[in-house]
Amino acid sequence: MPTVRRLAAVTPSSPATGLAVAHLFWTAEPGADRAAIIAAIDEVASGEDQVVTVSILGHHSDLCTMLLVRDQWTIRRFQTRLAAAGLLLVDSYLSLTELSEYAQGVPEPMKQARLYPQLPPPEKPAFCFYPMSKRRTADANWYRLPFEEREALMREHGASGRAFAGRVVQLITASTGLDDDEWAVTLFCQHPDDVKEVVYTMRFDEASAVYAEFGRFVVGMIAEPGDALDSIGVAG
Amino acid sequence: MPTVRRLAAVTPSSPATGLAVAHLFWTAEPGADRAAIIAAIDEVASGEDQVVTVSILGHHSDLCTMLLVRDQWTIRRFQTRLAAAGLLLVDSYLSLTELSEYAQGVPEPMKQARLYPQLPPPEKPAFCFYPMSKRRTADANWYRLPFEEREALMREHGASGRAFAGRVVQLITASTGLDDDEWAVTLFCQHPDDVKEVVYTMRFDEASAVYAEFGRFVVGMIAEPGDALDSIGVAG
Amino acid sequence: MPTVRRLAAVTPSSPATGLAVAHLFWTAEPGADRAAIIAAIDEVASGEDQVVTVSILGHHSDLCTMLLVRDQWTIRRFQTRLAAAGLLLVDSYLSLTELSEYAQGVPEPMKQARLYPQLPPPEKPAFCFYPMSKRRTADANWYRLPFEEREALMREHGASGRAFAGRVVQLITASTGLDDDEWAVTLFCQHPDDVKEVVYTMRFDEASAVYAEFGRFVVGMIAEPGDALDSIGVAG
Amino acid sequence: MPTVRRLAAVTPSSPATGLAVAHLFWTAEPGADRAAIIAAIDEVASGEDQVVTVSILGHHSDLCTMLLVRDQWTIRRFQTRLAAAGLLLVDSYLSLTELSEYAQGVPEPMKQARLYPQLPPPEKPAFCFYPMSKRRTADANWYRLPFEEREALMREHGASGRAFAGRVVQLITASTGLDDDEWAVTLFCQHPDDVKEVVYTMRFDEASAVYAEFGRFVVGMIAEPGDALDSIGVAG
Amino acid sequence: MPTVRRLAAVTPSSPATGLAVAHLFWTAEPGADRAAIIAAIDEVASGEDQVVTVSILGHHSDLCTMLLVRDQWTIRRFQTRLAAAGLLLVDSYLSLTELSEYAQGVPEPMKQARLYPQLPPPEKPAFCFYPMSKRRTADANWYRLPFEEREALMREHGASGRAFAGRVVQLITASTGLDDDEWAVTLFCQHPDDVKEVVYTMRFDEASAVYAEFGRFVVGMIAEPGDALDSIGVAG
Repeated sequence: MPTVRRLAAVTPSSPATGLAVAHLFWTAEPGADRAAIIAAIDEVASGEDQVVTVSILGHHSDLCTMLLVRDQWTIRRFQTRLAAAGLLLVDSYLSLTELSEYAQGVPEPMKQARLYPQLPPPEKPAFCFYPMSKRRTADANWYRLPFEEREALMREHGASGRAFAGRVVQLITASTGLDDDEWAVTLFCQHPDDVKEVVYTMRFDEASAVYAEFGRFVVGMIAEPGDALDSIGVAG
Repeated sequence: MPTVRRLAAVTPSSPATGLAVAHLFWTAEPGADRAAIIAAIDEVASGEDQVVTVSILGHHSDLCTMLLVRDQWTIRRFQTRLAAAGLLLVDSYLSLTELSEYAQGVPEPMKQARLYPQLPPPEKPAFCFYPMSKRRTADANWYRLPFEEREALMREHGASGRAFAGRVVQLITASTGLDDDEWAVTLFCQHPDDVKEVVYTMRFDEASAVYAEFGRFVVGMIAEPGDALDSIGVAG
Repeated sequence: MPTVRRLAAVTPSSPATGLAVAHLFWTAEPGADRAAIIAAIDEVASGEDQVVTVSILGHHSDLCTMLLVRDQWTIRRFQTRLAAAGLLLVDSYLSLTELSEYAQGVPEPMKQARLYPQLPPPEKPAFCFYPMSKRRTADANWYRLPFEEREALMREHGASGRAFAGRVVQLITASTGLDDDEWAVTLFCQHPDDVKEVVYTMRFDEASAVYAEFGRFVVGMIAEPGDALDSIGVAG
Repeated sequence: MPTVRRLAAVTPSSPATGLAVAHLFWTAEPGADRAAIIAAIDEVASGEDQVVTVSILGHHSDLCTMLLVRDQWTIRRFQTRLAAAGLLLVDSYLSLTELSEYAQGVPEPMKQARLYPQLPPPEKPAFCFYPMSKRRTADANWYRLPFEEREALMREHGASGRAFAGRVVQLITASTGLDDDEWAVTLFCQHPDDVKEVVYTMRFDEASAVYAEFGRFVVGMIAEPGDALDSIGVAG
Repeated sequence: MPTVRRLAAVTPSSPATGLAVAHLFWTAEPGADRAAIIAAIDEVASGEDQVVTVSILGHHSDLCTMLLVRDQWTIRRFQTRLAAAGLLLVDSYLSLTELSEYAQGVPEPMKQARLYPQLPPPEKPAFCFYPMSKRRTADANWYRLPFEEREALMREHGASGRAFAGRVVQLITASTGLDDDEWAVTLFCQHPDDVKEVVYTMRFDEASAVYAEFGRFVVGMIAEPGDALDSIGVAG
């Protein structure tokens, strides 16, 4: 089994503002080392950095560990430790927290909540992740719209989402240049039908109906690391 | 072999209305434990939850277990148990039963049949599953049509489907936000050519011809769990 | 090695008219059991059902077994037996023989030849299989054309194909709802350049040039089961 | 290890005119049998048939064997022998030499060079292979253009290519009906930047800019079989 | 384990101008030989040729070795040596340094920097790689624009990029004919949010918004070979 040496010499790779985010999707392999997995999660989550664990449904993966950290090397070390503990990394998505160009005027606490969110929110077990991009076709090219028009469309889209306040907490992180789509959306909901209802409802907004391209959708249930590992058969 | 601990502590993840649905597609691996598979199916199917078993044709998978359950954790536990029993989960599709916006006015028994269907219907051995979405192109954007126009198109589409009453039973479940397409269609037919005829005929409806995008199609034969396992070589 | 129990109890899944067709594509694995493979082929082919064996070129697969059978359970049992005999099913395509809506008026012997073909035709060693669908774009939507226009286009297309009579035998089977495309085309030709010439020539027909979407193309050589197995290294 | 029996009984599958072509792409596996690989190449190349060997760059494969043969069974037997010798066939492309409809009037020696080329040309170590098709969209449908217009576009395209005479030798083989694209292009160049320059330059021709769809591109270096095997780690 | 013989006899395959570039993406396998990997890197990097090592984030790969070399055989030999040392090559991208047609008039030192760059630049740990092509649709066909228009769009695009001078170093290499897209972009940035900001900002340029197609995006952190191997669990 590989071990991870200290990387004292390397230059940190940290965003100047906000946090580095990684959605890491794992499958459970026979012989996975439950204690080593929990120790690796605890090590990252013990300081200012965060790890959200999710028991995933379907054949793509069994477990999601969503990391929000200050230095990208923390993601890399965590990947290596979990692989050494016997999990197999089968999917991933890299992004950064950001204050978007449309949110420059929001109050300071909201700015902090977007750049340095505290996750997971309480009482929202139904988890959903999906990447998305804006279209650049001749008929609908988001990147050719003037800022004012994009801002108005995003305002309409935001209002549509706010109707779900209390049932749904949403985090949008930026991935242009970091991964295959331009943004990552993470939803925390009270019920699985809240996931369906919020995504279906917002699809009628012009910003989505005309300009959005969606990637894959992944759903699961938020759980403590031990409960998540129990549910996927990684027993102690 | 992993075992599944009791997950007493976790928060249930249940739709506020209707059932969580999972189409799980498995391949038979050498040494699969027939008794353990049947026990896991029986455990889920013994209460209010349901499991439909299908012997699948072609190279994609050997067996489909279609679950209709109240809590998504039941899906996760079932996945882990069947994997522990030696089946390999190679495909899946997640959705929810729903009463669509076009069906709000149907009689109460029909509402119940859509939200809480009893499956499989009798004397319909030919099974078909496929996911689908509505188009959002500049020329044909379903999500930019007014509700009345969408409702009229769905009414025409429904009438076209009703011509197959008696030969075909259809269940449409919602997957926007849960899986890669927006709906899942499950057909139970008398004969394999009923599958072909209903899907081919309905493709000429404007709702399909102009607005539908289809994913993969999976077909097989409904069978009791033991017969389905016999047919794929998982012997006792 | 799994064995296949008798499935006395299951309900047959047979088309009301015509035959169920499966193109099954296998790779040869070390230790494949030649005698068991030939026995499984012979069992299906001994009655009214048919199996065509083809030695396949290229990396996708080594062997095609094309089944034309009355009950889909025969396909499923055959799959399980060949897998048990050590072949690996890597691709497949499911369809049904049919009398298309454009062929309702053909003479009775032609109807029978389409619904119950006798394969393979003699002296046509060059085999080609491909799936295809008709386009549903805003500019070219086959399913929005009136029947008369589709019929005229198919008549032109048929005439173009008939110029290859004697060199090419063609079977078109229906797969809408059964597999990912809408039809399967199987060609039996005198020479490999007949394959190329017929497909290239017909691509200029409006029905193909404007309305057809093609999937993968698979080619090989028709051979007796033993010769086909010899050619792919499954020795006795 | 499988062996290949003599296939005395099978009907040859040979083009009526020209040669069958197969680009076979292999990865080197531990324990590959160098002598058996070279023997199989020598057997095919000893008569009128040809084998070009190429050391391939990148992760897709390690070695290309390009066969030009009279009977497709020779391709099948060669595949089986190299697989038995421990190489893994990971990609392939099937085509036929042809005299295209635009080249019917070229002088007889050029006709022979297209139907029965002698490969590889001397002093051209940089190899490139790619498949391509002509577009059939509403805006640019090659197959709806009259012959005269297609011929003029191909003449312009040919003139653009002839500017690279001496630096680039090009072979275009036909694959409509045989593989996923309509033609295969094989380039033999003096330098790797000749590959880039000829493909980039010709992309501005209307026949490419408007009507061409390109598949994958594979590059490598022509070498004798022994040198090619040395370079990919298949040592004696 | 395979070894690499000397390839004294083969003809070099070197660009007439500039360098051959290979982005090679590896996963760490159990038992990888750290010393052999470092020796292979050192051998290539000891002369005029260069190797940049990057610790990669996400599930696609663990390590990138970016080679800039005079002879493509050096890439092939390096691949074989690292595979023999126990790394698995899972992705790659081949290109060439070039002086584009729009840069013919730049000062001589800039020409040299593009054809013979010295990498990596200091103090830029955040690495990003992506391939890209120019569109050839009816609405936006880059290859049908006159040179002057393309040059003006590239000038605007370049000015937009130069706003990031000091934070971002960019290398564009040519891959038309060599790999699946037409160019490869390699970014070296101070912070991960510089990657996001430069790619996001430039996406609004007409050259990108209207004419660019992007492939996958890969990010990681520049590190010395030993530190990179430590971070992915290839311990000494």
